[in-house]
Amino acid sequence: MKPKPHLPGEFALIARYFAPLAKGFPGAYGLLDDAAVISPAPGCELVAKTDAIVGGVDFPPDAPADLVARKALRVNLSDLAAKGAIPRAYMVDLMLPDAIEEAWVAAFAAGLAHDQDEYGVHLIGGDMSSTPGPVTIAVMAFGEAPIGQIIRRGGARSGDTVFVTGTIGDAALGLRVLHGEVPELDGVSAAFLVDRYHLPRPRVTLGPHLVGIASAALDVSDGLLADLRHLSEVSKLAAVIEAPRVPFSAPARMAITANPALLATALSGGDDYEILFTAPPAAMERIAEIERALGVPITPIGNMVMPPEHNHSPVAVLDDTGLPLALASEGWTHFAGDPDR
Amino acid sequence: MKPKPHLPGEFALIARYFAPLAKGFPGAYGLLDDAAVISPAPGCELVAKTDAIVGGVDFPPDAPADLVARKALRVNLSDLAAKGAIPRAYMVDLMLPDAIEEAWVAAFAAGLAHDQDEYGVHLIGGDMSSTPGPVTIAVMAFGEAPIGQIIRRGGARSGDTVFVTGTIGDAALGLRVLHGEVPELDGVSAAFLVDRYHLPRPRVTLGPHLVGIASAALDVSDGLLADLRHLSEVSKLAAVIEAPRVPFSAPARMAITANPALLATALSGGDDYEILFTAPPAAMERIAEIERALGVPITPIGNMVMPPEHNHSPVAVLDDTGLPLALASEGWTHFAGDPDR
Repeated sequence: MKPKPHLPGEFALIARYFAPLAKGFPGAYGLLDDAAVISPAPGCELVAKTDAIVGGVDFPPDAPADLVARKALRVNLSDLAAKGAIPRAYMVDLMLPDAIEEAWVAAFAAGLAHDQDEYGVHLIGGDMSSTPGPVTIAVMAFGEAPIGQIIRRGGARSGDTVFVTGTIGDAALGLRVLHGEVPELDGVSAAFLVDRYHLPRPRVTLGPHLVGIASAALDVSDGLLADLRHLSEVSKLAAVIEAPRVPFSAPARMAITANPALLATALSGGDDYEILFTAPPAAMERIAEIERALGVPITPIGNMVMPPEHNHSPVAVLDDTGLPLALASEGWTHFAGDPDR
Repeated sequence: MKPKPHLPGEFALIARYFAPLAKGFPGAYGLLDDAAVISPAPGCELVAKTDAIVGGVDFPPDAPADLVARKALRVNLSDLAAKGAIPRAYMVDLMLPDAIEEAWVAAFAAGLAHDQDEYGVHLIGGDMSSTPGPVTIAVMAFGEAPIGQIIRRGGARSGDTVFVTGTIGDAALGLRVLHGEVPELDGVSAAFLVDRYHLPRPRVTLGPHLVGIASAALDVSDGLLADLRHLSEVSKLAAVIEAPRVPFSAPARMAITANPALLATALSGGDDYEILFTAPPAAMERIAEIERALGVPITPIGNMVMPPEHNHSPVAVLDDTGLPLALASEGWTHFAGDPDR
């Protein structure tokens, strides 16, 4: 509520930059009302997700505003996709420090506009506040899925195959590149990995095709091993994956070959935004059809099994000789502690 | 994503303090999944609203955590109520600085628990992040209303009466009390006003009764005059209100009597969270019935009129002689500029 010398008023900013993003959604009322109205299509229910990102924590303080906007939106669309939901709309709360200029807001809105077109979603509401802290963005995304059909975390059965879309570890390796820790890479490979860190590619088209096929799913945001552990725990099972089957991009392979310690980074780093899912063996053919139809690699990497009786880690990683690998870390959590969840 | 020495892990905090708040809503999946599922009742559509609050901007940095939680939730419920929606669920993004202790989180969740019971809503999702900035809370609230029936900002017609629920100005005067600017008040009166500043009372029960009766509505958050101007502009009308008819609490009357300059504070200050609405004269009897049935004062304070041709301010305030009052400010906007909206 403090005056912001660099910026026009809140209403002018909304009218100029954000109201145009709401034009295609009647229930957004042009952002001129106090709430939005949304209904699922017949036979569907709404799927709602929120995730916030904070400057200096989830993105570099000097990151370009359009990339920040797109990341904030995409991390939410990724969750909807992993649940099998078709994205429809989103809201944004934008907390801005005084130093922000109008050009930043313009670029932020341009980033949203770009991704709205790409993913077929519409802005339907939000809030702007000033903050003495860093740029902070909370996004709430709405999708829809057939009633009772979203793909849960906890539906895996013993004997199911574990699949992952796309490639794993690019974003985590990209962050290492940014920190100068992968000097062996050529420029093109390094840029590929860094781009994957800056800009998630949520599997929005693929996700809904998994409804009725996948027994459990989530998106890989905390890291492959941590997210597989989440899926295993809620499904009350264990998972065994084979490291040589995990799909890596060519740049990721180059990085790991140059420095084998980076295998752990790739398997346990976060920000992949691929879909990790399980499916019974009978679904293999339909999954192959989806892979062909959409041109997205879908790779089997292991299996769900009954948990060992005295279970300390529900995820085992086998190397190419079939022996278990020990990894330093199983990924990110937002706060310390909590080793057993 | 930074380790937080004072706090257990994110998952432990969610399991301990937030998952219990999701128990009553099946589509929240105990906060163990990546998204929530929600459907409107037959014949209804979902109404969605988000509003964020920031420490040091929207609440004092040392405010008790339970009050902060309740304020964050209530400002959103107030918008739903003003649209005529029945609240059902909400999500919370919680950005916490490193200095926050577990006891703060416990008190925050206790505040939510209290208000869930009071308003019949359930936590269905959210996110926790660390922040180098102040405590920041984004809430998204979901309600439902009969399809096509939410009460819009822009539906007022010329000749409609302007009504307001409850009393106006208490919160703004409470803030003045906190700043030591109303020394004339006795302790009980001062405490009443301060409490109204700390804790909004959204008109959750009353709002849905206005569906089909009110022609336009919004909640009074920016200040009576600013919000009436918003309603007038979107309705393409002007409003004339009579200051002597604006309902004040006894403590507010005492403050204004002691210092008449506080009349402007009361009329233009924010944070009332009452419902400002318009209705045609024919609705007067039904409104009186609602007032009696719910025991909430509903006061006619003026009328909607055709806007003057060269319109500089669509809201006129008349004093007890019928002459227009000039006020220093027409309320808050979150950023500077924007005098004509």
